[in-house]
Order: sequence, then C-alpha cells, then structure tokens
Amino acid sequence: MNRKTIAGVLFIWIMLCISVVAWAQPRGPFVISPQVNADKTVTFRYLAPLAKVVKLSGQFLKSPVEMTRDSIGIWSTTVGPITPDIYPYSFQVDGVTVMDPANVAYFPNERLKASLVDVPGDTPLIHAMRDVPHGNVTYEYYPSVEGSTGTVVVYTPPGYNKASSTKYPVFYLISGTTDTEETFFKVGRTNLILDNLIAEGKAKPMIVVMPYGNPMARIAEQQGKSKPADQFGRDSEDAIKRAKLFETDLVNHVIPYIEKNYRAIPNKDNRAIGGFSRGGGQTLRTAFGNMDKFSWICCYSAYLFTPEMEGTFKHIGENPEATNKQLKLLWVSVGDEDFLYKSTVEFLDYLKSKNINHKSLITPGGHTWMNVKTYVAETAQLLFK
Amino acid sequence: MNRKTIAGVLFIWIMLCISVVAWAQPRGPFVISPQVNADKTVTFRYLAPLAKVVKLSGQFLKSPVEMTRDSIGIWSTTVGPITPDIYPYSFQVDGVTVMDPANVAYFPNERLKASLVDVPGDTPLIHAMRDVPHGNVTYEYYPSVEGSTGTVVVYTPPGYNKASSTKYPVFYLISGTTDTEETFFKVGRTNLILDNLIAEGKAKPMIVVMPYGNPMARIAEQQGKSKPADQFGRDSEDAIKRAKLFETDLVNHVIPYIEKNYRAIPNKDNRAIGGFSRGGGQTLRTAFGNMDKFSWICCYSAYLFTPEMEGTFKHIGENPEATNKQLKLLWVSVGDEDFLYKSTVEFLDYLKSKNINHKSLITPGGHTWMNVKTYVAETAQLLFK
Repeated sequence: MNRKTIAGVLFIWIMLCISVVAWAQPRGPFVISPQVNADKTVTFRYLAPLAKVVKLSGQFLKSPVEMTRDSIGIWSTTVGPITPDIYPYSFQVDGVTVMDPANVAYFPNERLKASLVDVPGDTPLIHAMRDVPHGNVTYEYYPSVEGSTGTVVVYTPPGYNKASSTKYPVFYLISGTTDTEETFFKVGRTNLILDNLIAEGKAKPMIVVMPYGNPMARIAEQQGKSKPADQFGRDSEDAIKRAKLFETDLVNHVIPYIEKNYRAIPNKDNRAIGGFSRGGGQTLRTAFGNMDKFSWICCYSAYLFTPEMEGTFKHIGENPEATNKQLKLLWVSVGDEDFLYKSTVEFLDYLKSKNINHKSLITPGGHTWMNVKTYVAETAQLLFK
Repeated sequence: MNRKTIAGVLFIWIMLCISVVAWAQPRGPFVISPQVNADKTVTFRYLAPLAKVVKLSGQFLKSPVEMTRDSIGIWSTTVGPITPDIYPYSFQVDGVTVMDPANVAYFPNERLKASLVDVPGDTPLIHAMRDVPHGNVTYEYYPSVEGSTGTVVVYTPPGYNKASSTKYPVFYLISGTTDTEETFFKVGRTNLILDNLIAEGKAKPMIVVMPYGNPMARIAEQQGKSKPADQFGRDSEDAIKRAKLFETDLVNHVIPYIEKNYRAIPNKDNRAIGGFSRGGGQTLRTAFGNMDKFSWICCYSAYLFTPEMEGTFKHIGENPEATNKQLKLLWVSVGDEDFLYKSTVEFLDYLKSKNINHKSLITPGGHTWMNVKTYVAETAQLLFK
C-alpha cells in the first residue's frame, strides 16, 4: 500500500467514524470518565455546557460532591483516594439523575440507573479479572411458571465445557428487589470471584445459577401487561402469590431445568441457596420451606422476623437437632451500617436462642454490592466442603 | 398458618420491600413506563416534580415530543400508534438526556445511553419471544491480542447442549462504533431471531459469535489506562494499528478459541462474517483480507470506498471469476434514509461494474437497529445453504 492509498483509506476511515459517532453522541468532544488515577483518586467528567449545577453521587461518598465546569462545558471532579472496590455512581445534572454517558459499565436494575466504577487494588482484588482459567456465563431460557418463559444466568466453572462427565454442585443465588438476573454477574462479578477462588484452590468448582426474583412481573410483561403498579404489594393475596410464585419457579422449574441441562449433582448436599436483600428473604423462605432440597444456606443482608420463624417455619426452631443435622451451613451476614442491621442481628439472636448452628459475619458498611461481593467470596469458600 | 400470622408476615414483607425500595428509588411513587397500549400507542412517563420541560426522543419520532406534567410531578405523553418493532428512546429533562429509570431494557453502548421499547406485532415478530425451542447465549473469556482477555458473546442453537457430536457452521457478527459485544444480543435480539427462524425451518442451526469491535480500547482498559481520547483516530499509526488489531483478534484469537471450545465446523464454507456500521467495514476488510477464511459476507449499512477496493483489495475486482468462486454470498444492505446510503450505493455500483456477484437490499429507514434486525433475519436464511 503506497502513502497515497494509506492517506486515502485513513481519510475515509476517519470520516466514517466521525459520521457514526455523530449519530451516537451529537453533543461534542469526547469525555473520558471515570478516569482512575494511579493514586486511587478518580476523576469523573460530564459534558453539559448548559447545566447550572452538576453533582457526583456515589457509594464511595458520604454525600454528593459539586463538580466544576471548564471553559467548554465539561464538568469534572476528582475524589478519593477511594478504597479499591466496584462502586455504583451517578451524576445529578440540575437535579436530574443520570448515568455516566462515557462509561459502558452499568448496574442492571429495574429502577435504579447507575454506572459502575472499578478502583483496582495494588494486588488484584478477588473480583478482578486475573490471568487464571475462566469459566463462562450463559443466559438460558427455561419453561417457567404459568406458561411464561424464564431467563436465568448460569456460571459454569473453568473446564466445564471440556470435561465430558464431571458433575458439579450448584449454588442458586438470588439478587435483591428491583435487581435482575444479571446483577450478580454484572455488579457482583460472581463469575470472576469464583474463577479466582477456584484457581487458588479455595473454592470447589461449582455451577452458580442466578434466577430472576420476581416472576410475577415477568408473567405480566409476557402477557403484554405492564408490571402491576403495586408491584410491591399492598394487597394480601397478591403478596402471598408473589412470594409463592418465586419459590415454585425455583423449586419446580429452575432446578429441574438446570439438573436436566447441566452436569449438576442432583441431591440436597450438592445444592446451596443464597441471596441478597429480598433475595436473602427468598433464600430463607425457600430453604426453610424445602428442607429436603438444600443443605447450604447463605443469607446476605436479610432476615426473617420471629413471628414468621415461630409461625410458618416453626419446625426450624422446634427441633434444633434435626435442623442442625439437615443443614451443613446456615450463614447470615450484614453490614453494620445496613438499614437492616438491627433486624438481622435479632434474627441471629433468634437462631442462637434456639441453638440453631449458624455462621455470621458483620462487616463495615451498608446495604451495598460491595458487601455482597465480600459475602459471596467468603461463603463460596465454605460450600460443598 | 392462621390469619394473624399471615397478617404479621405480610406486614413484615411489605415493610421490608418498602425499605429496600426506598434505597433503590428514593424519589416517590412508582411510575410505569413505557406502557404499550392495545392500539400500539405507547405511554411514556417520567417522575420529575422539579423539572421545567421534559421531552421524549425516540427513533419512532421525527422530532422530540414535549411531555405533560400531572399534579404530583409525573410527566407523560402517549404517542403512536407505532409500527411494531424495538426502538431506542430517552428523555430530555431540562435539556439533560436520561434513560427511562422505570425500564430495565437498555441499549449497551459506550456513549449512547438509551432505553428500549418493544412494540409487539399482532402476530409475533421475528425477534419476539415465541413458544419455540430456545438456544442460549454465553459470555466467554478468551486469550486476546497483546495478552489481554477478550469477551465474546456466543449464541448456540436449540439442542446444542444435548447433541453430543453434531457440529455447526459459525456466523461471526460484529456490532458498530461504540456498540459492545452485547449489542447484537440485547438490541439485535439475534438469539431470538435465530430461534424463530430455526423453528420455522427457514435458517440452518448455527452458532453466532459476537465479538467486541475495539480491542485497542480493551487493552488500554486492562492496562489500567483510560481509553485514548482520540479513540477514533487522528493519528495514522494508531488508526492502522486499531483496524489491524481487530482483524488479528478475530482471525488469530476468536476463531481458534471458538473452534477449540465449540462444536464448530472449522472450514471456510462453514464460516460467515457480518457486521453493522463500523462492524460492516470490519467485515469487508477482514473478509477481503482473508479470502481463505470466509465464504459468506454480510455487510449491513456500510461499504468500502473505491480507492480502498482498488488499493488494498484490488484482488477482489481484478479477478471477478476467482472472487465469485470463492464467495457463496456477498450481501450489502442499507436504509434509504441512512446517512451512509449514498456511499453504500456507490459501493454496490463498484461491485456491479466489476461483475462481482452480490445480493443487495435497500429498506426504508435509517442507520438503525430496527434495520439491523431485518438484515440479520434476511441473511440468516441464506447462510450455509
């Protein structure tokens, strides 16, 4: 290729790119955001020539920080150093909450719209992409409740594809209210945590199955209805139906589908169930309501109140010896600034008072996915051992 | 469970849900948006009590529409009827572009932040979730260029898991500038289009591999650098390196990884390559530069200029008989309102002038993913036959 041809090709290439970019982002110069600096400070930028006040909110901040405008209308601020982790953040532009348009990493959620910033550790954190064998993550469609088609996200460990007959234990992992079946993958980095722990020999190779927590909403959607306005239930029949639907979906649809289509070991001692927030409540209810199905229970930032433990789940406390024999792990963890901290501690007190074996972990921080990652990493090392 | 226990459990459940929701969405009442009505009109809503002007933008509109505020601060508008399809849209809140916080369906992109509305057809469209056997979609990590770890999204057809020895042809499908490896899945619904066409016997079962189009940006990211500001290239060395890196990644890394880890038929006649916009350019360059690798070429809304065809790819036009023998399909399609329409037609004219066999399709509309879905559905029916 001679110089003239190179110049011609380049010109065309650049024109094409500019045209395409013009469609995607008609507003002007490129903005780099977030920019993680060597000293763990992070610079955030947002292009808004006409805005009056732009603030940064993030779970690494106590309160929003005002950003500063430059001469062409790029607002920026540098904060930190920030403790290495992955954090949700957003901008408030004249009071309007927006994701960071320059950042492709997003928080999958039905209400919250946030971007994610990854501040790496000096040595790679447990959720970091390391140079280790990687498992993969598959979006599966399965026949779900009431004729609907469910989506479930499935992690298979490194070597799963090639191993022709090895069977694996399965960890069912349920995200929180308004989260989706993607949240443990995209925000929780559950796949990379498992890859790293397996590479270090700290976790057993396992399949992790991440279902969607609100099949009632999915049914409504597939029937062409909008999600019910009172989707969090002010009507008792709906609330009971919603809770029951999840359990039915998991036990009668998701588990059979997985055990048919994956090389899963299909017995109680090789099934774990865990979840965060609403998913933690669903974990406890599903496990306590199906004591023949799961030997390992991981409850992250959630609890059941005593009336429910004394009512529906009376059998758990009534015969602690039987319960302790049936369960290989009952884990409860919560952050000391979590708004559910007090209730979770009361639940732990209840378990103690009834002599139910359990492990607990109280961490600093709140009801956050930073904490969830810690809990996943801790519990994954205990499961199936 | 007696009535008192039920009431207690429900109270706790509702309180828990309200608390969790308070964290996720501190701003007030639930908003349903988008709401697709029976007559194919769609109601969009956005909660912003303090906003002065809220507009709706969407690829179903000629220009933004002003929304109307109700007494509690929910802005809404009903538009349409809208021709059934999936469209990107966003709100402009006092001039600030935001995704719809009430809608979980998003457009994966490095710059554009848009939500997606799905207006269903009276009979299900080709990209609709139908009651047919479903393939699945896997996120794979593979060893990519310059020691980086690449991510590629892979569709396997229904029955792939169970068939123990069947091998499949592979379609490599590349999205556009600022799109990601997720865009053909999340916006293009390539998996559902294939599921439906395979169920109807109109497409051969195939694997579809969706790589990321900008490995240079990924390398920078994994080295802890922010993406280069001039990521679309104002410097010739960088621009050449960037284009070449993609081709190297696909040919030397992605294809060998797929053929090692999937039951792919590893020969030219069972490899297709296609792409949209920048991915269409990458398709043509990679295919014309590796005539021993692909027999099927699908170029959506893209082209190469004559100087490049007469320069680097002179061999294509110089010996049309050889070219026509080597290629089983050279497809070029574009929308008649696409800003690349004229150049694409010139490319088609060039192919004609050189007697290169090709198929073309000119559709109504612009440089949109509505058109991309049509092109995927049309070409999938031609491949590997």
